[in-house]
Amino acid sequence: MTQPTLPPLAFDPFDPVALTQALIRCPSVTPAEGGALALLDAVLSTEGYAVHRPVFSEPGMPPIENLYARIGTDGPVLVIAGHTDVVPPGDVARWTRDPFSGEIADGVLYGRGACDMKGGLAAMISAALRFRRENPEAPGSIAFLVTGDEEGPAVNGTVKLLHWAHERGERFDHCLLGEPTNPAAMSDMIKIGRRGSLTGKLTVNGKQGHVGYPHLADNPIRGMVRLLAALDATPLDAGTEHFDASNLEVTTLDVGNPATNVIPAQAQAVFNIRFNDIWTPETLAAEIERRLHEAAGNTVRYEISFQPTNAVAFLTRPGPFVTMVSDAVEAVTRKRPALSTTGGTSDARFIKSYCPVVEYGVVGQTMHQVDECVAVADLLALEQITHRLMADYFAAVQHA
Amino acid sequence: MTQPTLPPLAFDPFDPVALTQALIRCPSVTPAEGGALALLDAVLSTEGYAVHRPVFSEPGMPPIENLYARIGTDGPVLVIAGHTDVVPPGDVARWTRDPFSGEIADGVLYGRGACDMKGGLAAMISAALRFRRENPEAPGSIAFLVTGDEEGPAVNGTVKLLHWAHERGERFDHCLLGEPTNPAAMSDMIKIGRRGSLTGKLTVNGKQGHVGYPHLADNPIRGMVRLLAALDATPLDAGTEHFDASNLEVTTLDVGNPATNVIPAQAQAVFNIRFNDIWTPETLAAEIERRLHEAAGNTVRYEISFQPTNAVAFLTRPGPFVTMVSDAVEAVTRKRPALSTTGGTSDARFIKSYCPVVEYGVVGQTMHQVDECVAVADLLALEQITHRLMADYFAAVQHA
Repeated sequence: MTQPTLPPLAFDPFDPVALTQALIRCPSVTPAEGGALALLDAVLSTEGYAVHRPVFSEPGMPPIENLYARIGTDGPVLVIAGHTDVVPPGDVARWTRDPFSGEIADGVLYGRGACDMKGGLAAMISAALRFRRENPEAPGSIAFLVTGDEEGPAVNGTVKLLHWAHERGERFDHCLLGEPTNPAAMSDMIKIGRRGSLTGKLTVNGKQGHVGYPHLADNPIRGMVRLLAALDATPLDAGTEHFDASNLEVTTLDVGNPATNVIPAQAQAVFNIRFNDIWTPETLAAEIERRLHEAAGNTVRYEISFQPTNAVAFLTRPGPFVTMVSDAVEAVTRKRPALSTTGGTSDARFIKSYCPVVEYGVVGQTMHQVDECVAVADLLALEQITHRLMADYFAAVQHA
Repeated sequence: MTQPTLPPLAFDPFDPVALTQALIRCPSVTPAEGGALALLDAVLSTEGYAVHRPVFSEPGMPPIENLYARIGTDGPVLVIAGHTDVVPPGDVARWTRDPFSGEIADGVLYGRGACDMKGGLAAMISAALRFRRENPEAPGSIAFLVTGDEEGPAVNGTVKLLHWAHERGERFDHCLLGEPTNPAAMSDMIKIGRRGSLTGKLTVNGKQGHVGYPHLADNPIRGMVRLLAALDATPLDAGTEHFDASNLEVTTLDVGNPATNVIPAQAQAVFNIRFNDIWTPETLAAEIERRLHEAAGNTVRYEISFQPTNAVAFLTRPGPFVTMVSDAVEAVTRKRPALSTTGGTSDARFIKSYCPVVEYGVVGQTMHQVDECVAVADLLALEQITHRLMADYFAAVQHA
């Protein structure tokens, strides 16, 4: 809960650049909180938010801190979701700047988390603070759902935080998730859905033997090539209105036999499928099993297993909320963004069970890389876009 | 050269079982001579053979002892070829007998080299001693070409020994190589040729990337599957009169990518082809390159390389000598052996450049294995078969 007395902040949280720098200086590499959530707690509490810091854990895993904050008591509730944890900086010697200093050079702010996603979260918080200060009597509520476990196992993060909030009676109307959705410019892309992800492991069993006596052996590589060719022969689908075609990539294929005169006993492959809203993990696994069974015939002995997955495909159908986000982007950037469902997975796959969710943030080109950065101009633009969205969103309530 | 005075032998070299035991008790694991060639030197010198013990070496490799012995001065020269070196015993604890004791139990003689090929060499030497003692005035010559480097790199063995003998003016008419050619019984199989062996390494280069953005990456596994499927799609040939069809086996296939969300940058495969007398290593490599080029089109970037090989295919066409060996086997076993070109490679691939060569020896079921063994009865049969062959071979000279 909030502290009874609050120390003064050393920076201006209404400035998204200053807030981003302050967050980057917190070394919150998953699972470390690193001071990032405490900082947001102080910022939001000062401005009147009710702040909660639930900690979730599982046996054998480090406990994870999370944050839920809300201002306002009535509906509708617009949730801004995000995470303060970051991936490790990697080889710090390869960075041209200290990854945890938030240094600015030539209009670019550098640091781990600059675009994924301390910058996006900071700009949205600054916008929310300004909107509520300018509109203290605005209807509805603004809430922040911030986890420290997005880049890690994602077990003690958004899933549990959503459940925790729901159990407390919190209900959400719409969510904006501040992941970096733009490939190159702030006007590029809103994400209205994400493909699902399914990982499978395929093992083909043969019989070891000498290459000089192939009739006494059974080379599993021959069967593996046949099965993989069959998986790749026909597209899984042709895509849907809002989704690209589902796509299978074999990510590794290993035998590990050093002897050039020995036919090996086993071959293993791992593949990952990014799939659209035609499929569920269950129907997709069944289709893969059907294709393997057909290609194997009576000659290839194989085993297939799938990793458990909660990365189902989801789509927030275009409608008033998506239009409102697009309008806000266009109003600031003078260009209407594309509605996309490309790319990897995100916590939006969990949020979508509670309310419609749209993803929009800064330019993600440098995410997870050395010299991760965000343009100062983009932080300012995102603050304005978020402010515009809030103004439109709550004005619509008043006019309704 | 032979010693001027010869110590008496502790066993009877006319007994193939005793001679096999004496050889097995010499721990001649490649490259160690282990006393085996010294023992043969003593045996053959005692019986009037001119014995030579050339040592060959290469920089960075241990020197290897070899033996060449001949009795008789005129032609024709029948050469018996073999090796005294053996592969290591492996885990001695798994043997039920000391691998270097030559123990006999229930009519079976155990020990490393029992079938590959101290037993075969011993039986042939015993036969030659008996034939010359019974026929001291027989025409022609019998020679022994014995290396200590067949199981090793095979660099300082038969290749150099053949060259050494040729340089000395030695000319050979026919060769019997005593490798264990029989799958199950002494009447099974004579080898009149061997397939060649060619090993290739195939690398497919792609472009690493995230599975969520496959259009920004190029998965090399997709190309590898396509290339390997193309290599396997059409048989290399349908076999020839004396050879099975040439056969390609992919022996390993490796990517080594642990990340299920990453498309890897490279995939590597190694394959080995056992090929018949339709091909040379050069024409076969060209055919593989043609198939890869056709399958790759403009989309798959690959590299192919072949290991240098001297394992060319060879065939000793059926004729009087092959018939004479078959007759000898049939006379003793009462069953005519098959003429085969199956299995791995042997030193016959080197000998065939100097004279026609046929391979025949004991049953090879346990070669290179724990509890390697040979039936005592088979040693006695091989002594009789070799004796019969020599009688027929030199009788043919007298009648010619």
